Amino acid sequence: MFETVELGHKIAKGVFKRREPKLRERLLELQYKLLDNKDVPVIVVVSGLDGAGKSETFNLFNEWMDPRHIRTVAYGKPTAWDLERPEMWRYWQTLPPKGRIGILVGSWYDEPLARRARGEKRVRFERRLERIRAFERMLVAEGAAILKLWFHLSRPAQKKRLEELASDPRTAWRVTKDEWKQFRDYRSVVRAAEEMLEGTSTGEAPWEIIDGSDHEYRSLTAGTLLEELLAERVAGKKPELSPNPPPPPPPLDKRTVLDTFDYARALDRGEYREKLDKYQGKLNLLMRGRKLRERSLVLAFEGMDAAGKGSTIRRITQALDARYYRVIPVAAPTEEERAQPYLWRFWRHAPGYGRTAIFDRTWYGRVLVERVEHLASENDWMRAYHEINDFEQQLSEAGAIVVKFWLAITPEEQLRRFKEREKTPYKRYKITADDWRNRKKWPAYELAVNDMVERTSTENAPWHIVASDDKLFARIEVLKTLVREIERQS
Amino acid sequence: MFETVELGHKIAKGVFKRREPKLRERLLELQYKLLDNKDVPVIVVVSGLDGAGKSETFNLFNEWMDPRHIRTVAYGKPTAWDLERPEMWRYWQTLPPKGRIGILVGSWYDEPLARRARGEKRVRFERRLERIRAFERMLVAEGAAILKLWFHLSRPAQKKRLEELASDPRTAWRVTKDEWKQFRDYRSVVRAAEEMLEGTSTGEAPWEIIDGSDHEYRSLTAGTLLEELLAERVAGKKPELSPNPPPPPPPLDKRTVLDTFDYARALDRGEYREKLDKYQGKLNLLMRGRKLRERSLVLAFEGMDAAGKGSTIRRITQALDARYYRVIPVAAPTEEERAQPYLWRFWRHAPGYGRTAIFDRTWYGRVLVERVEHLASENDWMRAYHEINDFEQQLSEAGAIVVKFWLAITPEEQLRRFKEREKTPYKRYKITADDWRNRKKWPAYELAVNDMVERTSTENAPWHIVASDDKLFARIEVLKTLVREIERQS
Repeated sequence: MFETVELGHKIAKGVFKRREPKLRERLLELQYKLLDNKDVPVIVVVSGLDGAGKSETFNLFNEWMDPRHIRTVAYGKPTAWDLERPEMWRYWQTLPPKGRIGILVGSWYDEPLARRARGEKRVRFERRLERIRAFERMLVAEGAAILKLWFHLSRPAQKKRLEELASDPRTAWRVTKDEWKQFRDYRSVVRAAEEMLEGTSTGEAPWEIIDGSDHEYRSLTAGTLLEELLAERVAGKKPELSPNPPPPPPPLDKRTVLDTFDYARALDRGEYREKLDKYQGKLNLLMRGRKLRERSLVLAFEGMDAAGKGSTIRRITQALDARYYRVIPVAAPTEEERAQPYLWRFWRHAPGYGRTAIFDRTWYGRVLVERVEHLASENDWMRAYHEINDFEQQLSEAGAIVVKFWLAITPEEQLRRFKEREKTPYKRYKITADDWRNRKKWPAYELAVNDMVERTSTENAPWHIVASDDKLFARIEVLKTLVREIERQS
Repeated sequence: MFETVELGHKIAKGVFKRREPKLRERLLELQYKLLDNKDVPVIVVVSGLDGAGKSETFNLFNEWMDPRHIRTVAYGKPTAWDLERPEMWRYWQTLPPKGRIGILVGSWYDEPLARRARGEKRVRFERRLERIRAFERMLVAEGAAILKLWFHLSRPAQKKRLEELASDPRTAWRVTKDEWKQFRDYRSVVRAAEEMLEGTSTGEAPWEIIDGSDHEYRSLTAGTLLEELLAERVAGKKPELSPNPPPPPPPLDKRTVLDTFDYARALDRGEYREKLDKYQGKLNLLMRGRKLRERSLVLAFEGMDAAGKGSTIRRITQALDARYYRVIPVAAPTEEERAQPYLWRFWRHAPGYGRTAIFDRTWYGRVLVERVEHLASENDWMRAYHEINDFEQQLSEAGAIVVKFWLAITPEEQLRRFKEREKTPYKRYKITADDWRNRKKWPAYELAVNDMVERTSTENAPWHIVASDDKLFARIEVLKTLVREIERQS
């Protein structure tokens, strides 16, 4: 794979000097168009062997273009904060917003490469690559342009380069034990890199391998590649993504999870009080227990309008220590959130150890309201199932207990509550024209819920459909389920 | 101070039941108006003795109003992340945006109270109170409405309440050693609280003391106080703030810091190369040294257009490890940032230990461009001097080394650079109509810079005015100064 680049490519200084100003001019022009359009985030992954010019290249990109619109990120060791969250968390936090260029040094490739070079099993390595492919595919589907640069050196060239850097007092600090170790392990690092590049060179985000031994050659090549990518995207050309399979036809007998559901569950107030005490007590005890010390809790609440999400959530928070939970009401995204992939605004709230995040409406909006209201294209909501499963899977792997509730009410009960809300002055705010409009789309929502449950009820994060026509029953059922799930998963 | 509340206020359950629905209705209506207007953030500080109803009150507020637009925050022990930053950092991070209500339990009063009750010296305590007064005055000046509730209990009432909570299995967990300790220390806690409330009960943010012994009385009182505040603010009534003194008249002889400055400093390229190596090497060594392990670095760059901020910053970053610095270009604030006090968007970037934040334009925009262009009222930019000094002081106290540079060029040199930029294709982006417009206001900017330097050059964070007509000289001077400042402050 690296044979041809190891030949040692060169460009004469004169040629470079002649071509550089033109390239800069063009890059700048494109950068400004990108900024004006505000619809494409550009992600440049700068990776490669130590000494092959990674830091020189991102310095150069910052010099060539307007650095105020470039976000350069090099990742240090993960902080305690990072370590309490999924591995991809910190990469999500540093994604450039639409219209901007992010230059990421190392990024999500560093860890898999280092582990594989140290001998991590092929099967685990493959799983990491699969996750990366899915992540990049999602980014591209969300509009991102991705350029991945691998700067390479032959073994003798790396040695020469590291020695040069080490002998110059200005750069000596960059050559630490780590760099020499990489050089000693050259063969295993390069073998792992080969596997990695092969495994993650996809149609939508291919790797570009660049010989890093000559400053002029390397810089001009990297710059030209970026120019080409920007030109394409500014002109509106996008990589083709293999389409998702079309959505399944609705069940022939029109029976869905929701309309075959038993709604007739109820609880009298006496029993309710007693069980409320019991399960709130249990929940509180569990949350303060030793087993949850290095875990977090992510609760997702969905349901038709007036299903009782708010009041049910309150019965949970009453049992929690206010310092350690946060209720996240999901409404229209902010400007910063709209400039990012749709899952970004949920990633940003991923809780650390000992913390609880309660989502009042969730990332499932994509396959519910956005599907039903045609706010997302069919292709977009179809891919969301997989992306959502992966998101929850990553949360679980990082120690989160993910519990999802669908509060299920009948159309009749909804109508009753709507009318009651209209009658009660302090509840009137809860009922809007939207609610009446949504109500008319009940069958479409039922179908969407059916598909959602079918496709996203996973081992780690199953859906709990809770009969909610009777509020008291629903609250107890949610508390009971929550307690059971915490016990099961901890 | 607490005598009258210790009488034990009560409201009959019947009265409460009758008045509650009206209050809820009114609160909701006001909450929605607030949300529509989007110009006032409402901050409710819930404080008081343990067992006096703090958590009950914020639960109630969440039940009475639409919880999706309320941000409830209770502060746990500070995390490692918090501890590396100024004490006020985490409170800045949880301020409600305009249009929303934030209910903060404990908040910035917890720590001073606890320390004073444990015997912290009066003079240190007073300094904390002064900081809080300044913070709240700033919040109010930025448009916030602040309600501060102190829930009180007499000693016997606290005992009774804690015993009740402890004997109920649902609430027993809330009574830990800490609560009993507060009860044992009742006298010293209440004495400290008295001092604290007296010291921070200002015209713009007075304390309201509420007897916490009776649920109905406490709730109705708190709710009514919130209702009154919301009604006032929704109607456009604001607390009067004592105005800042008017700005000083310009110097009689029209001589300012900048026009008496010696711009004629230069360096030849040979000397430049040599010194660049020397100081970049020193900087790099210092940054990796032991002394900076629990410190951070905050660099502020200001200067007229084309003064060379970007290229100078690049000479610094070349010597830094890319993993540990971040350049923050300051442009128009985002929507999330506009919904917060103007310093918020700088606070959010306060670096942790071992990290460097480099601001390309800074919080001084308030007293420079916003003053000159009349984007901020005179009163707003006049108060900014103090607020900015306090911000930098807090950074310093938390271990940051703050270094501020004004890159000083002459109007003639600026003109030369503007013209050169227009001639060079890849520099053309750097010159806009704004730049030419700003140039015409040179005298106004000189005056603004003069006042800025006079008022914000502090012991901890002095201004360094650097002759920048010669770029080479400026870069070396900045590097040299930076090295010297790090040595001096570490």
